[in-house]
Amino acid sequence: MADRPLIDHDYKTPLEYANTPNMDRLAKGGLVGLMDPIGPGIRPGSDVANLALLGYDPAKYYTGRGALEALGAGLKLSPTDVAFRCNFATVNDDFRVEDRRAGRIRKGASKLAKAVDEIKVESTPGVKTTFKSTVEHRAVLVLRGEKLSRNVSDVDPKEDGMKIRIARASDGSEEGKRTAAAVNEFVKRSHEVLREHPLNQERAKDGEKVANIVLPRGAGTVPTLPSFKSMFDLQGSCISGTALIKGIATAAGLEVIDVRGATGGLKTDYEAKAKAVIEGAKDKNFVFLHVKAPDIAGHDGDFKAKVRTIEEVDSLVGMVIDEVDIGLNYVALASDHATPVGYGTHTGDPVPVVIGGPDVPASRLLKLSEATASRGNLGRIKGTDLMPIITDFVGRSRLYGS
Amino acid sequence: MADRPLIDHDYKTPLEYANTPNMDRLAKGGLVGLMDPIGPGIRPGSDVANLALLGYDPAKYYTGRGALEALGAGLKLSPTDVAFRCNFATVNDDFRVEDRRAGRIRKGASKLAKAVDEIKVESTPGVKTTFKSTVEHRAVLVLRGEKLSRNVSDVDPKEDGMKIRIARASDGSEEGKRTAAAVNEFVKRSHEVLREHPLNQERAKDGEKVANIVLPRGAGTVPTLPSFKSMFDLQGSCISGTALIKGIATAAGLEVIDVRGATGGLKTDYEAKAKAVIEGAKDKNFVFLHVKAPDIAGHDGDFKAKVRTIEEVDSLVGMVIDEVDIGLNYVALASDHATPVGYGTHTGDPVPVVIGGPDVPASRLLKLSEATASRGNLGRIKGTDLMPIITDFVGRSRLYGS
Repeated sequence: MADRPLIDHDYKTPLEYANTPNMDRLAKGGLVGLMDPIGPGIRPGSDVANLALLGYDPAKYYTGRGALEALGAGLKLSPTDVAFRCNFATVNDDFRVEDRRAGRIRKGASKLAKAVDEIKVESTPGVKTTFKSTVEHRAVLVLRGEKLSRNVSDVDPKEDGMKIRIARASDGSEEGKRTAAAVNEFVKRSHEVLREHPLNQERAKDGEKVANIVLPRGAGTVPTLPSFKSMFDLQGSCISGTALIKGIATAAGLEVIDVRGATGGLKTDYEAKAKAVIEGAKDKNFVFLHVKAPDIAGHDGDFKAKVRTIEEVDSLVGMVIDEVDIGLNYVALASDHATPVGYGTHTGDPVPVVIGGPDVPASRLLKLSEATASRGNLGRIKGTDLMPIITDFVGRSRLYGS
Repeated sequence: MADRPLIDHDYKTPLEYANTPNMDRLAKGGLVGLMDPIGPGIRPGSDVANLALLGYDPAKYYTGRGALEALGAGLKLSPTDVAFRCNFATVNDDFRVEDRRAGRIRKGASKLAKAVDEIKVESTPGVKTTFKSTVEHRAVLVLRGEKLSRNVSDVDPKEDGMKIRIARASDGSEEGKRTAAAVNEFVKRSHEVLREHPLNQERAKDGEKVANIVLPRGAGTVPTLPSFKSMFDLQGSCISGTALIKGIATAAGLEVIDVRGATGGLKTDYEAKAKAVIEGAKDKNFVFLHVKAPDIAGHDGDFKAKVRTIEEVDSLVGMVIDEVDIGLNYVALASDHATPVGYGTHTGDPVPVVIGGPDVPASRLLKLSEATASRGNLGRIKGTDLMPIITDFVGRSRLYGS
């Protein structure tokens, strides 16, 4: 949601431009401030930002994104498994990337994944691979076996027109080299399997981009997180359409609630999500709701879409605070990071944060925005501060000292 | 002093409700902000909060409360001693606590303490005990001997109606077990000694609660603090009515000034304290003054008493800033933590902080409160930040780097 003022929109941010009566209502009666997801100027990935929001210091707990994605995709991981985020992509005969999302392939991805899942890597005895497609062109790869390491570089060059990279041991270790060898063989084999696949021959015939290779990135192992319950004395659940957030929630021991229509995309069912929050609040005392849409609009550089998604999130906030009595319960609202439409990528800006509920000092602000939040009554906090503050308001904080 | 807005007092806090012309004067011309004693949302005990205020990071220096209390009670401790805070309490034959303050016993506590001090524990050879009463039902116990540990749990259940607890080694160590055994025997022996004591027989006859047991809690060893002088280049003294604060000051190498009438209670002699500050400022360049009263009113949940004690503190502030020329000297004012009357316990809220003196930017606020402080010119700092800021203003900070 957070953004920067735009010269071609009267120096307003999308949040300032949007009509957000419900967020404004929450902000007026609550604590409002700025929050650095990690620290001032630190540009966070969604993984570390959401770990921090849930109270887990990434400096202590972050072990790579891949395993969080794999957990979120419903795979079971052992502590020694190394997992990767993957894209189905289109490469030419020179292994130059024509489209790192293979035309955002939708149909047939799971069939292609089945073929890829049958690959057996031979260069590294004892290593087994599991491959599963998730949303559109996205998938996860898990390497299982002895002496593997998450210290391997990405195969995905993360830019169209570049050649794919050879995975390497980023720490020079034997385990890293062994893992890199397995990944490189897997990528080569994925090309062999996919380019012959009938589904791709059909796509080619229809003038569609072929999904003729798998590009892994973001090697990771499962983080050892103390349970959310043990940290904050709260029984929690998580509602999200994205595998990463589900994976973080799973690693933290939150119950992942699957909501039909929660897509993790631009179009998601806000009403279904709001209902799930209200329903979840009945048998849990903490519900973590994540909406991906404004981030996508930011990545797309689409001001209008960002304003629209913010207004849709506002309607969701309205549904929640109308049903959840904030004279008795607490509702906190924050971006996990800024994705300014003028940049199309995450930036290190602080984000607005609001905490509403009983006995919370009222900011008396009339409108929630990046600018008003910078003058709010909460001051400037860090992502990892949010859960301790909430825990203290709900009366479940432990005394430090005596 | 710090609190939360109260619904039955026009959403005002006691500080907002109180008439505080002197604090307001200090605030208007000084730096004003919010201070997290430890960190946002962290609920501090008085021990860690005051260590932090004096510039000692509790994460680095805190070794339990008991030894600080014992130091404050005037006992000399060696680094291997383990000390406990204790209450005289009333238990029934089942060791269920009827009153963990033995009717807030005043008279005769030192006589009872003398009898308890003569106890010799036999289960743990080589361990000697020292016992001393302090204020009302409060006392300290010191175990001296080899192979003792502060990792032992509390005997005091901290709630009336509960059975007393058996002390245990919280880390499972041999030293912990040995210490726990000594504590448990001491508690048992204290019951034997006290229930037969003539003073208790008198109390029973008079219908008063008998002080028939001693309940230790908060095991601690003396922290190894670098001297306050070495940290901030300031020669300091401390004025306080409470053993804990005196103990922290002693451990930091501050001179403890005993002020007749400084009780550490709701009624304390504010004028005597103010005079001691002014007197102390003559041959020292730092005076730490602690007032306990607003905290007690907060624990009692007594809004009126809290407003009154804040107004009394305000008059003290007036006496100090009228005498200490703040065109030449610095006066800082802060709560060590919040004790909201609606909660009756410490919370993790940030507290208002003010720094007045030469060349300090003026906040121009008209009234000191939690809300105005949240928009003050100091921003949001941590407890351990206060001494470095003061040290820098007085021109005694060391250059970092070169």
